[in-house]
Amino acid sequence: MKDNYENLRAECYELNMEIPRRQLAIYTWGNVSVLDKDDGVFAIKPSGVSYDELTVNDIVIVDMAGKIVDGRLNPSSDTATHAVLYRSFEGIGGVVHTHSSYAVGWAQALEPIVIYGTTHADHSVEDIPCTPPMSDQQIKGGYEEETGIQIVNHYRKLGLNPAESEMVLVGSHGPYTWGRTGTKAVYNAVVLEELAKMALVTRQANPNVEPLKEALRRKHYERKHGANAYYGQGN
Amino acid sequence: MKDNYENLRAECYELNMEIPRRQLAIYTWGNVSVLDKDDGVFAIKPSGVSYDELTVNDIVIVDMAGKIVDGRLNPSSDTATHAVLYRSFEGIGGVVHTHSSYAVGWAQALEPIVIYGTTHADHSVEDIPCTPPMSDQQIKGGYEEETGIQIVNHYRKLGLNPAESEMVLVGSHGPYTWGRTGTKAVYNAVVLEELAKMALVTRQANPNVEPLKEALRRKHYERKHGANAYYGQGN
Amino acid sequence: MKDNYENLRAECYELNMEIPRRQLAIYTWGNVSVLDKDDGVFAIKPSGVSYDELTVNDIVIVDMAGKIVDGRLNPSSDTATHAVLYRSFEGIGGVVHTHSSYAVGWAQALEPIVIYGTTHADHSVEDIPCTPPMSDQQIKGGYEEETGIQIVNHYRKLGLNPAESEMVLVGSHGPYTWGRTGTKAVYNAVVLEELAKMALVTRQANPNVEPLKEALRRKHYERKHGANAYYGQGN
Amino acid sequence: MKDNYENLRAECYELNMEIPRRQLAIYTWGNVSVLDKDDGVFAIKPSGVSYDELTVNDIVIVDMAGKIVDGRLNPSSDTATHAVLYRSFEGIGGVVHTHSSYAVGWAQALEPIVIYGTTHADHSVEDIPCTPPMSDQQIKGGYEEETGIQIVNHYRKLGLNPAESEMVLVGSHGPYTWGRTGTKAVYNAVVLEELAKMALVTRQANPNVEPLKEALRRKHYERKHGANAYYGQGN
Repeated sequence: MKDNYENLRAECYELNMEIPRRQLAIYTWGNVSVLDKDDGVFAIKPSGVSYDELTVNDIVIVDMAGKIVDGRLNPSSDTATHAVLYRSFEGIGGVVHTHSSYAVGWAQALEPIVIYGTTHADHSVEDIPCTPPMSDQQIKGGYEEETGIQIVNHYRKLGLNPAESEMVLVGSHGPYTWGRTGTKAVYNAVVLEELAKMALVTRQANPNVEPLKEALRRKHYERKHGANAYYGQGN
Repeated sequence: MKDNYENLRAECYELNMEIPRRQLAIYTWGNVSVLDKDDGVFAIKPSGVSYDELTVNDIVIVDMAGKIVDGRLNPSSDTATHAVLYRSFEGIGGVVHTHSSYAVGWAQALEPIVIYGTTHADHSVEDIPCTPPMSDQQIKGGYEEETGIQIVNHYRKLGLNPAESEMVLVGSHGPYTWGRTGTKAVYNAVVLEELAKMALVTRQANPNVEPLKEALRRKHYERKHGANAYYGQGN
Repeated sequence: MKDNYENLRAECYELNMEIPRRQLAIYTWGNVSVLDKDDGVFAIKPSGVSYDELTVNDIVIVDMAGKIVDGRLNPSSDTATHAVLYRSFEGIGGVVHTHSSYAVGWAQALEPIVIYGTTHADHSVEDIPCTPPMSDQQIKGGYEEETGIQIVNHYRKLGLNPAESEMVLVGSHGPYTWGRTGTKAVYNAVVLEELAKMALVTRQANPNVEPLKEALRRKHYERKHGANAYYGQGN
Repeated sequence: MKDNYENLRAECYELNMEIPRRQLAIYTWGNVSVLDKDDGVFAIKPSGVSYDELTVNDIVIVDMAGKIVDGRLNPSSDTATHAVLYRSFEGIGGVVHTHSSYAVGWAQALEPIVIYGTTHADHSVEDIPCTPPMSDQQIKGGYEEETGIQIVNHYRKLGLNPAESEMVLVGSHGPYTWGRTGTKAVYNAVVLEELAKMALVTRQANPNVEPLKEALRRKHYERKHGANAYYGQGN
């Protein structure tokens, strides 16, 4: 807290501004948070503030339960969802929620995004999961916290590793992504929207297409993320 | 009328310019009006003037019957529709008509936009209604006034509250939206186009998808608009 | 020819530049011509010159048979098609050909764009016709001239008035539009692409939708173009 | 090597920057290479460097086996694929790989892009081929080299001439294009994405549409590329 969260706020602000720049959301329809693990806090967009008007000082600092630690505005109404993900998924440093059109389309369809090609496999070897509709009980309770819990439970049920499947569709709602850093989480949000669009075109071009074969999934994922990864500059 | 409608014109002009900026219409294909309730007039875009050439002084001031009060151009040919909405829907301060592509697509399909997700529920708990085709009688009569009357009648028939369902599709034609202010009406026009696109993707990803469950509709609408709303900054 | 076609060239150049600006074509995939009826010539884009590199002096002046009158480059390879349209359709002053994506999609589908709504009716009361595939004979002959002849014959066969239906799809190829002026012809090319997109959305939202009812076609067309037109500023 | 590959690097850099400019890929999802036939080397984008950060000095020079000759970064992980194409397809001077949305959609669908119209025929008289899924053996071996080999084998099997069919879909993966020059290869990548979009619209507008008739294929290709080509300025 050396700098009154100045750096954390700045990073969170810049990453939030990527959302409209990458056309993932209009008006206020998204939010990015960034974790400071050492201080046990995360920075997040304030609730209901449009990207057009957002300033770095509007960013809110909250603790791991989502309670305000520093800031003059209310944090995103989705803060409790972010908090659950930080508490449950070891090693993640950023969380992103958007209402990008194609990803929302699939989430509303209650359909996972099937892995059809190597663009997808470069980022995950699994389908992008879609959580089932919440029970009325969950909705009426702490809705946003329940949203996070449902993501976590769905990952457990499917046996998914959140470090290898960093994108999810919340059924009837829209996408959440995360990553080791805030930058990676935003990157994943952009990738997810592109995968959602590509998968739709794929099905339209061939309604009977099969998922990508196992060997190719592994190959593309391993060349980027495996022990012998050879994609990139090795740093 | 303290300022010869200078402020009203300026507001109306700025909101009209949002239409091309948000890519809701090309050339002259849209119009925004803003009400001055105290003076019993509204400002509206002139007819057939392209957004490229529109100036603040082109904005026309008309009374609640749609008759020119001030201005050197003819008001939008859709002025009578706006007038009916202002006279019939208590508390609205702005009306928008566009020909945005996806909303027009659904209007031409004579299909309401079914509520499939929370993006929709954030703005309305109902499907976005689509009026049935007009009778030949209505078309041959005061066509634009009849368009407004048909919207109002359709709302009555469906038992819709215009304060809670601020977007409509005029069958075979296109979208009208409104709101407490002109700004809100334009916001709704942008939202409607996005919902129209998302709903199409949803159906393409899963032709058998069911509408959003009731509890989730209520939850999302109430967290934004209900008595205990907790979205935003409480202002 | 008072000015060595300087004005005609400038007008033709500006209208050609609208094509990439309105995203109707990439690279060299379109051409606009403008008629000077008094001089019996028309100006047209040179062949194979990209919009990025096009200059006003590249515009070619040809006579009504498509032969070069002035200019240092070859005219568009589609010049003969333009020439047929000018010779056959009384009163037109500009012709546009593009490869805009949705209009080409319908042309390749060999499907007319059915009139589904008032956006379409504002510009034509008829479906946008699509010419049938050419015979091998026509293709091997003067192909570009035959393309024009086929448009004209198709209009005769369907009993269409080229002054009221200023857009056509050449089957397996793409759109041609025209108008009283070059500006109107370009406007029609933009409108056609938008109608092509809207019609696709319409069919996807409701595969069983019926064409727009007759009374509404007439109403919208007449309010813009009829003897008692009341759209616009009456000039 | 007169200039330490300065010109080759500059050309390769400029062509790589066309990829994001033409919206063919986001982040690092594409690569362009340019051949210097005399020196027996080609220049290619480095691996995992985002277009936002790419500089001319990052471009890597490799020999015809894909081994680094000059440069401080690792070349694209797809370098071996480029190398196979240069060694196998006589006369090509540039190769492009992207993950453009519509082309990837068709590749993931394992469907060739059928020739439906003259926009396609202007560039090739054949369907754009799609290679079948690789065997597990190929995937586990030298994957990127096998990708190139599979393209070459598929061309042989179909009897395609790589000088006349400069675009291919690698099944489950995405597009590769090439050309006599790097500029032509990039042009083909843009064209392919447009053809992929148009073909999808075509099928959606008419699911039963037939491929373009033979005479029209030949006509359009010949007027641009044949011995008596009359498109363009004859240079």
